[in-house]
Amino acid sequence: MMNEKTTQTIEKLKQEMRRGIIVVAVMSRLQQSQYGYAMLKNLNDRGFDIGQDTLYPLLRRLEEQELLESEWRVDDPRPRRYYRLNQTGREVFKDLKTEWNDMEKVIRRIINETE
Amino acid sequence: MMNEKTTQTIEKLKQEMRRGIIVVAVMSRLQQSQYGYAMLKNLNDRGFDIGQDTLYPLLRRLEEQELLESEWRVDDPRPRRYYRLNQTGREVFKDLKTEWNDMEKVIRRIINETE
Repeated sequence: MMNEKTTQTIEKLKQEMRRGIIVVAVMSRLQQSQYGYAMLKNLNDRGFDIGQDTLYPLLRRLEEQELLESEWRVDDPRPRRYYRLNQTGREVFKDLKTEWNDMEKVIRRIINETE
Repeated sequence: MMNEKTTQTIEKLKQEMRRGIIVVAVMSRLQQSQYGYAMLKNLNDRGFDIGQDTLYPLLRRLEEQELLESEWRVDDPRPRRYYRLNQTGREVFKDLKTEWNDMEKVIRRIINETE
């Protein structure tokens, strides 16, 4: 049986794992203009656990890094801020995708050795 | 062409991705007693880029979290510290492996949609 401390340690390690990969997941949703809530719903529907407390700071950071553009749309029933990768953002995403593919293969191989 | 700032951003994002997953890679090497340099070489040989400035703090942290045990072996030509997962560590690793498998599938699906 695992005690309280171990459970907390596992939760922390899982969060770290997720944190590193969240940026790829979110960028993948930003090929077309998208607003925050739709992105959250889309990712959660696909089994990727992310909340607004994580999403919005990340979107702000990506905008500061000049990887995406955003705009308010006021013609919607409710005004919403839409986000989308710009040209640089698309190149960065492509690059991260390649890195992910490489890393995935390496980790897969390493983990399989332990089975 | 990407400018200097973009290159730095990419490097940072890649590092974040790697950081989250490093713990699984390192724990996978600790099923048997292993010393630091052998672990580094083993991981680098398999294409996982990690240096001693990352490995040793991580080993210390895992020991503080009571997931591994370590001992000096002085009967080697050179005294070396050996590390190995304890029972809790093995359970935590198993749990992280499951989390990784789930996450991998989800990310794979999400990324494929963009291709």
